Amino acid sequence: MTHTIRPFQDSDWPALWPILQATFQAGDTYSFAPDSTEQDIRQAWIDTPAATFVLCTADGTIAGTYFIKPNQTGLGNHVCNCGYVVAPAGQGQGYASAMCEHSQAQAVAMGFLAMQFNLVVSTNERAVRLWQWLGFAIVGTLPGAFRHQRLGLVDAHVMFKTLATPG
Amino acid sequence: MTHTIRPFQDSDWPALWPILQATFQAGDTYSFAPDSTEQDIRQAWIDTPAATFVLCTADGTIAGTYFIKPNQTGLGNHVCNCGYVVAPAGQGQGYASAMCEHSQAQAVAMGFLAMQFNLVVSTNERAVRLWQWLGFAIVGTLPGAFRHQRLGLVDAHVMFKTLATPG
Repeated sequence: MTHTIRPFQDSDWPALWPILQATFQAGDTYSFAPDSTEQDIRQAWIDTPAATFVLCTADGTIAGTYFIKPNQTGLGNHVCNCGYVVAPAGQGQGYASAMCEHSQAQAVAMGFLAMQFNLVVSTNERAVRLWQWLGFAIVGTLPGAFRHQRLGLVDAHVMFKTLATPG
Repeated sequence: MTHTIRPFQDSDWPALWPILQATFQAGDTYSFAPDSTEQDIRQAWIDTPAATFVLCTADGTIAGTYFIKPNQTGLGNHVCNCGYVVAPAGQGQGYASAMCEHSQAQAVAMGFLAMQFNLVVSTNERAVRLWQWLGFAIVGTLPGAFRHQRLGLVDAHVMFKTLATPG
């Protein structure tokens, strides 16, 4: 194993925040406002989700992270939602794929029956292809639903994968 | 005019809560847990949204309500989301249609460019047809995404309507 994926601990935050900040500042993949504060992002990535994980390289460096949470409350809470971020230095090493596979197993362990991504930016073609390769379908495309910081309004996909049948 | 639509006031709550409670207890249209508390629903319908409206009949009785809020934060906050409820006694009088048209004008006035419904229960055929008649498209269908209280897992639609172009 060249990496491990484990639950987030409070002591990870100082290393995690710059990775998240760099990603969201670019304004090309996630809807978080590029000028979000550290407190805003900590709430969204750590406090609100049901669980957050980090991916560590062999020397213990954090190179990625994901969260998992119910996508809806109440009668829609059997479908989960996840968000994934890979550190700039960790790109191209299969970390997003590893985290997505980990999150699917985690989702099933937590009792979720399916996983939904609500706003996959259409111009983020690498991500779209990766999710498709991992079994997610584009169930619909939202016209102009993402305000890309360089390209203006671009389409976003809703992607979905059934993970389990009701037990 | 046989009805008016006006902003919610605190004094409306005692009349509004039973209408919302009756709707959500049925568990066939909205994801709110059927056993949601009054406090839960007040937060979701009144406190969290950007604005909430009520529809009053000629004698001032509240017969419907809707909320409007951004559907996403940050770079997706130009798309709004609304939820509509008509009192059981007010069904079949065009109130849902009137509120949806009011909400679209309100959305444009608030600067939103589009409106999205995230979880339109497929078995709620009257609602699906009404939103289509009012210009919303089914952009995708989420398999088994709603846990219907009588029918079990049923599909839900994502519906979307563009309201304006960037000014």
